[in-house]
Amino acid sequence: MHFSKVETVLEYRVGGEAHVLLNIEAAKTSAQAVISEELVIEPACDFESFCDEGSGNRFVRFDAAPGSLKIRYRAHVQRSHVVVPPDLEEVPVNRIPNEVLHYLMPSRYCESDVMSRAAQQLFGHLTPGIGRVQAVADWIHDSIVYEPGSSVSTTTASEVFVERAGVCRDFAHLGITLCRALNIPARLVVGYVWFDEPPQDFHAVFEAWIGGRWVLFDPTRMAPVDRVVRVGTGRDAKDVAFCTLFGPVSMTSKTMTIEELQDESAPVGVAPTSAARAGAIEKPVATLA
Amino acid sequence: MHFSKVETVLEYRVGGEAHVLLNIEAAKTSAQAVISEELVIEPACDFESFCDEGSGNRFVRFDAAPGSLKIRYRAHVQRSHVVVPPDLEEVPVNRIPNEVLHYLMPSRYCESDVMSRAAQQLFGHLTPGIGRVQAVADWIHDSIVYEPGSSVSTTTASEVFVERAGVCRDFAHLGITLCRALNIPARLVVGYVWFDEPPQDFHAVFEAWIGGRWVLFDPTRMAPVDRVVRVGTGRDAKDVAFCTLFGPVSMTSKTMTIEELQDESAPVGVAPTSAARAGAIEKPVATLA
Amino acid sequence: MHFSKVETVLEYRVGGEAHVLLNIEAAKTSAQAVISEELVIEPACDFESFCDEGSGNRFVRFDAAPGSLKIRYRAHVQRSHVVVPPDLEEVPVNRIPNEVLHYLMPSRYCESDVMSRAAQQLFGHLTPGIGRVQAVADWIHDSIVYEPGSSVSTTTASEVFVERAGVCRDFAHLGITLCRALNIPARLVVGYVWFDEPPQDFHAVFEAWIGGRWVLFDPTRMAPVDRVVRVGTGRDAKDVAFCTLFGPVSMTSKTMTIEELQDESAPVGVAPTSAARAGAIEKPVATLA
Amino acid sequence: MHFSKVETVLEYRVGGEAHVLLNIEAAKTSAQAVISEELVIEPACDFESFCDEGSGNRFVRFDAAPGSLKIRYRAHVQRSHVVVPPDLEEVPVNRIPNEVLHYLMPSRYCESDVMSRAAQQLFGHLTPGIGRVQAVADWIHDSIVYEPGSSVSTTTASEVFVERAGVCRDFAHLGITLCRALNIPARLVVGYVWFDEPPQDFHAVFEAWIGGRWVLFDPTRMAPVDRVVRVGTGRDAKDVAFCTLFGPVSMTSKTMTIEELQDESAPVGVAPTSAARAGAIEKPVATLA
Repeated sequence: MHFSKVETVLEYRVGGEAHVLLNIEAAKTSAQAVISEELVIEPACDFESFCDEGSGNRFVRFDAAPGSLKIRYRAHVQRSHVVVPPDLEEVPVNRIPNEVLHYLMPSRYCESDVMSRAAQQLFGHLTPGIGRVQAVADWIHDSIVYEPGSSVSTTTASEVFVERAGVCRDFAHLGITLCRALNIPARLVVGYVWFDEPPQDFHAVFEAWIGGRWVLFDPTRMAPVDRVVRVGTGRDAKDVAFCTLFGPVSMTSKTMTIEELQDESAPVGVAPTSAARAGAIEKPVATLA
Repeated sequence: MHFSKVETVLEYRVGGEAHVLLNIEAAKTSAQAVISEELVIEPACDFESFCDEGSGNRFVRFDAAPGSLKIRYRAHVQRSHVVVPPDLEEVPVNRIPNEVLHYLMPSRYCESDVMSRAAQQLFGHLTPGIGRVQAVADWIHDSIVYEPGSSVSTTTASEVFVERAGVCRDFAHLGITLCRALNIPARLVVGYVWFDEPPQDFHAVFEAWIGGRWVLFDPTRMAPVDRVVRVGTGRDAKDVAFCTLFGPVSMTSKTMTIEELQDESAPVGVAPTSAARAGAIEKPVATLA
Repeated sequence: MHFSKVETVLEYRVGGEAHVLLNIEAAKTSAQAVISEELVIEPACDFESFCDEGSGNRFVRFDAAPGSLKIRYRAHVQRSHVVVPPDLEEVPVNRIPNEVLHYLMPSRYCESDVMSRAAQQLFGHLTPGIGRVQAVADWIHDSIVYEPGSSVSTTTASEVFVERAGVCRDFAHLGITLCRALNIPARLVVGYVWFDEPPQDFHAVFEAWIGGRWVLFDPTRMAPVDRVVRVGTGRDAKDVAFCTLFGPVSMTSKTMTIEELQDESAPVGVAPTSAARAGAIEKPVATLA
Repeated sequence: MHFSKVETVLEYRVGGEAHVLLNIEAAKTSAQAVISEELVIEPACDFESFCDEGSGNRFVRFDAAPGSLKIRYRAHVQRSHVVVPPDLEEVPVNRIPNEVLHYLMPSRYCESDVMSRAAQQLFGHLTPGIGRVQAVADWIHDSIVYEPGSSVSTTTASEVFVERAGVCRDFAHLGITLCRALNIPARLVVGYVWFDEPPQDFHAVFEAWIGGRWVLFDPTRMAPVDRVVRVGTGRDAKDVAFCTLFGPVSMTSKTMTIEELQDESAPVGVAPTSAARAGAIEKPVATLA
């Protein structure tokens, strides 16, 4: 079991009528339970929560009035320790489940349709399996320079492949793209991750479908993937933006605190204790997804 | 009521073990019923049919052995006459249903994230509503040259916007992109359409979400949109390829026959009669979607 | 006659053996004379000056040693008042001089080869002549948002055309591209310009070949074009970078002072007086180009 | 000594007033002499010949009237046997001559400004020198698939790097781009080359500036570079199009005959003999460039 406490505060200046779509809440999956969480929007407003059917991503949407807007989210999350067998095999295309097939298709930032030859050239000779996806992740780590400011929000994987620089989402996009080009379904995962080196921030990694399951890879090697507190899962970054703003809104501040409580031994589901430990948790979650 | 008979024959040369994903069957929707249809794959093979949950697209997938491959699909389809009110209003972003929201996001061939300013500049001053989407379609018709060979399968909407030439899918992609950039959800629709001028072929148009419903637009003006026998609906062309080939397969021939039976007065559901009229229909469809 | 005094100080941190190619000296043309100028490089080093044959651009190149590097350039420049007749006609392609022809060709940041249709569509119906080029500049002014940070050093004109935002060099690149696409030779001009609103900086405008001569246009409208103290002229920004750095060098500071002395009546060539006025001018220029 | 006979016939349909700029005549350089040549344009027309100062490229330009246009060029060319020492060294940037410097800059189809990291990564560890440029050419040969139809006239080197397919000009563009990104000046050379396997066609190779001289490389390995009958030299393909058409002109036919006369022992300059052998040579060239 892993336990994490995350807290983020996002502040915006709203210049006019605006609508906000948030995707910052920890996902509820078979491997991740939200023990307690709290979302506070100031000024208080009516908001609607919904869970996207396909992805399981949890969204909150609301209208924001002109002025300042402050969003604070805190969660205490418990994650299963995932043991990934070292010998997972790639699934031949004809046995990829119907609902997974579309993770083979190119998407906005992952133009796998133009990278088949490059992917085959670099990785086509390797034994199919989890080792090959690891080789993709290793190659990205070794070939792409992690450089904040080297890419923008519309940078695509093929641009990263040419320019050989980017940030975590670019690394993940390239991993996804190369996998898809090898006929391995792949998708983006974003979440909170505790980095040994500050500052803490949202993080993006990728997930490949091998051996009949989704397996996480982080080509940045900035943190072990089992530290990922999953928030969003999607085809690429456009599906999992933590905040989509409609209207004249600009961010003024973003802070994040992440604690990894690896040695925690408290049993799962003892919400009161957890809540006490986490502070004023107002919205305990009773059932695990 | 509109009645159409469509028939297409696709021939391929298969050079090795391959897997084929077809999306050529007429969709079954509240506005379109398949009276009868027949899909023949030669050489005969086991195939699996499934319907994609989100889109309703009907897929067939199968393994193809080396040699020649022939796919023949015939259908007799009935479509409701759709009356589109002339005064449909755009839905403000904050009232777009949750499940429609993702049709606002950029996709592989529709980079709406880089075209906001262009869309606002060209159409921002127009009264929101169906007339504005029609203006987008009209502008595309007037500004983009329809020129076979001017684009490739990976051409994106922003490239079409720059180069001002393309084919039907490029026209539709640009329409989708401009709508999304205006905060109007939009998506691609492909299908069979009877053109006054041969040759018959698959066609692509776009659909915008206005007044709480999806409305079709064809910026090519090659045929009235109510002739569209819908096959696939998706974010863009990557979601609705009529045939996705995994392995060494190349198309050798494609033929298509489409008949529009506009004056037909036979009641819907009289399958035997329809079947008789359509020829050897082997797979009558009893229930309408 | 216009008189300008320009001074710029560029500071760099040099991390290892490096080579520097400067293009910051005022050009010497039939319309622009350098009354006096001074270039100081600290630490002092041997440098080579040369004038590029085709463009007339003045370059200085030198090796820079690790440590800090400071480049100071001051000049007192006199420019003829250029009267542009309002009725200059476009020159048909078959009468464009041989040596001007290559300004019709696409270049790194000016992909006129993909914008013919767009250019024809927007400006093809206008009467050929200087008015049409002015219409190009006006359209850019009205259509592109001037927004620092919206583009990078590798942004091209077609990207600016799509994204509708940029800075002065992007505006100029788009002007060049649209002109070339209309078969009007065009090129980039960079220089010092006194802006009414600070901060002062290098500026980029474009020049079109009309009526048998080069005529300046500034689609940003940030300053009258006759304030341009010309430094470099080229196919696009890659030809006229004010500083090209080979090696581990990063800029630490850039300051610029520009004075426009419009009412000055002193005769040209009275170097001592000018020198006195400009301060310690160490390198008077005796001959006008 | 190498002797070549080349003949090309280009046919066009001219739909309206047009202007034609040809660059199909064999270059006259210190290593290549044109023994005899003939250019016939039908219908006959006044044409102007000029030699571009920077590149030495020979251009012919003329107005074409509506109707059919036939251009026939024949030449008998003698080339020195070029011995390239196997140990040529790269020239450090600070010793690259002024007039060669601009072959380091990015150009329309060679975006070396976005490929520095990729070039360093692939070739930065190799010993500088002719061997490194050969490694670039070898890598291109091994990594890029030669596939007619895989690229278009506006395809750039970075696109070829991503898509890993192209034709000779794409191979050459990528070679140029990688060299420039390594601070090795490089440029495009087009010409006639006798291929062992037909059809004969124009060919494109690249030239890198090493050891103080230009050295040819052909990453396609379609023919030894000393078979190149040089026609044009430029920054990239935009500088050396064999035919630039202004107006409604379309090519209807292109044929080419190239003979490599390797064992020829006739002395250079015996024009009558050559002329007799070549047929009706109307324009003997007396002096070698």
